[in-house]
Amino acid sequence: MSIAFRVEAAFGAGRCGRLTTPHGEVETPVFMPVGTLASVKGVPQDVLEDLGAQILLGNTYHLYLRPGVEQVRALGGLHRFMSWPRAILTDSGGFQVFSLSELRKVTEEGVTFRSHLDGSPLFFSPESAMDAQIALGADIIMAFDECTEHPAQPARVRESMELTLRWAARSKKHFEARKHEVSWQDPRGPDALVRANGRGLPETQALFGIVQGGMDLALRKESATRTIEIGFPGYAIGGLSVGEPRALTREIVESTIEHLPADQPRYLMGVGTPEEIVEYAALGIDMMDCVLPTRAARHGLLFTSQGKISIKQAQYAGDQAPLDPNCSCRVCARYSRAYLRHLYASGEVLAQVLNTVHNLSFYLDTMRAVRHSIALGESPRSLSEVWSRLKP
Amino acid sequence: MSIAFRVEAAFGAGRCGRLTTPHGEVETPVFMPVGTLASVKGVPQDVLEDLGAQILLGNTYHLYLRPGVEQVRALGGLHRFMSWPRAILTDSGGFQVFSLSELRKVTEEGVTFRSHLDGSPLFFSPESAMDAQIALGADIIMAFDECTEHPAQPARVRESMELTLRWAARSKKHFEARKHEVSWQDPRGPDALVRANGRGLPETQALFGIVQGGMDLALRKESATRTIEIGFPGYAIGGLSVGEPRALTREIVESTIEHLPADQPRYLMGVGTPEEIVEYAALGIDMMDCVLPTRAARHGLLFTSQGKISIKQAQYAGDQAPLDPNCSCRVCARYSRAYLRHLYASGEVLAQVLNTVHNLSFYLDTMRAVRHSIALGESPRSLSEVWSRLKP
Repeated sequence: MSIAFRVEAAFGAGRCGRLTTPHGEVETPVFMPVGTLASVKGVPQDVLEDLGAQILLGNTYHLYLRPGVEQVRALGGLHRFMSWPRAILTDSGGFQVFSLSELRKVTEEGVTFRSHLDGSPLFFSPESAMDAQIALGADIIMAFDECTEHPAQPARVRESMELTLRWAARSKKHFEARKHEVSWQDPRGPDALVRANGRGLPETQALFGIVQGGMDLALRKESATRTIEIGFPGYAIGGLSVGEPRALTREIVESTIEHLPADQPRYLMGVGTPEEIVEYAALGIDMMDCVLPTRAARHGLLFTSQGKISIKQAQYAGDQAPLDPNCSCRVCARYSRAYLRHLYASGEVLAQVLNTVHNLSFYLDTMRAVRHSIALGESPRSLSEVWSRLKP
Repeated sequence: MSIAFRVEAAFGAGRCGRLTTPHGEVETPVFMPVGTLASVKGVPQDVLEDLGAQILLGNTYHLYLRPGVEQVRALGGLHRFMSWPRAILTDSGGFQVFSLSELRKVTEEGVTFRSHLDGSPLFFSPESAMDAQIALGADIIMAFDECTEHPAQPARVRESMELTLRWAARSKKHFEARKHEVSWQDPRGPDALVRANGRGLPETQALFGIVQGGMDLALRKESATRTIEIGFPGYAIGGLSVGEPRALTREIVESTIEHLPADQPRYLMGVGTPEEIVEYAALGIDMMDCVLPTRAARHGLLFTSQGKISIKQAQYAGDQAPLDPNCSCRVCARYSRAYLRHLYASGEVLAQVLNTVHNLSFYLDTMRAVRHSIALGESPRSLSEVWSRLKP
């Protein structure tokens, strides 16, 4: 095993756990900030550490284009390249191919598509996605899958699920053959991983499988069962948040979780709002990621314990209150809504920096509170319940 | 007196001093980072504090447009608005009118011009510039002057200098009548300024005069003499760095300093490169400001003890060295040139943040080293001499 996972407390379906990776421990349920191009947009790594981020997500497709996965390997891997000594997870690139490329052609072998930067032709396969992720050297990497579009005909959903299953087997086979090629140069120093190994910790990456199956509960069950048969140290639920109603997302998640191993991490890809991450954690999801807190911040949309705030609104121009009086982040501790509104309205770069720091802090604090609730044997059923406990 | 200034050490023409303002002490010679719109672009205030910035510059013209000076007054003044408890200096807006507005009309009364944002008509006069700066509430504010264009005919230079002298007298008269209208709400708490007063410190702003006179040494002397006759607690040298050769700038500065009071602060506006700020400090300049470190950072131009680096260049793509091995800033301590190059080439916002932090750190460290040299009775004649002493 390349990671270790231990469930430490549970309440209802929700559970608290500890995920041990070659680059440190991750308390679950965890929200993973998205650092697409080896940077969480606008936020320096020391601030991410101060916020308590224990794991970041990097996008293989974007890093494949810039600076290139072999460049990252030559520079000692993603941890060293971006000076992030804690855990990293990379996606396989499959979702970006699905969402960014209009001209893609899927065959049994893989996907032919065009770069969103310059239109140049590219080809990703389970094997090349594994090679790319081994070169990047994240702690957790993902099988190459096809994200089924929504809506889709039943035959198409099955066909797509079957393809993802065959690609999962190829991903695992290629990963097992190549996993010792990971070239980790730890930013904590050359001996850090050796010392970690001395404590019985792993030295290779962990490859997670991905459950597909569209919006069909039976296909989801079949996908889960057959992915587990291939065998991975953790399982993701993919193909959601692709335009379906939220009630349906929830139904699929709740139903799919029942078919996943209780002693392994469960990763729900690409969600969600603050309300949703609380809800999914309560259903038993251990890991989540989403661009929402960082992307919304860039558009002046801020999450607070009292609801969403669009900081560009004129009503905040003279508002001396902190963004969120219940938040203890460095932004809420120092700046007023009036100042944040001015920065945003004036197009100042600091607006993006401060807004992103606050939104990430809000997400990470929310998950910390959820973990605390579960550990205390309480039920964190909603965001407002979680934050009502955090109020000073 | 609204500020106090004490020369503490001198070597040759250069000197070290201590400028006491209502919002803290400033060690001179000092470089003032430019925070045009109440933000040093991309850098949070706590990072500026960590860098050792003791005084920032704000631009009255820009703040007049956004968020508006009466808005800032209503929010407790610039210190409280931007949560910056240390000293601030504002310019009068005259230079921005000169540099940003193509359609301006100068009369005895003031300047009619158009907003660079929406073309709306605006009018600045010595009186309105004082009112604006009193509303903003910086510790040090500047007389409203005309920055003489270069080149200019002798008669034009005299005419412009005479206008600046009349405007200086009007600036002072209006400021003296209105200076008690400054509404300071200190971000350190309502009692902070009262406590400062209890230690004998001032409660009003300080208005500095500005020496003009183009590139004519005799007119510079006359401008200095007559501005001193009006009487200010500090004097700026304006109208330089407007396209003239650097040797001429230096000649004007050196010559003008001789006519300025030795016991009052001397502020050279709008300079310069790292080499120049060392040089001007050695000539006896106490205060300087320039957009160069922050603006260059946004274009990937970085100052180091080994010279300038254009981080966008491909040669840095695989360079694992820190930006400047002699620099101890948080950027050089953590990130490689390869990472900084990747961020810049990928258009990541973090590039601007980190580049600006480094360049400001380099400028502030340079001035710290200059002060140290002067205090030790050494001659900091050049940037390379200064940094050769800083090397580990």
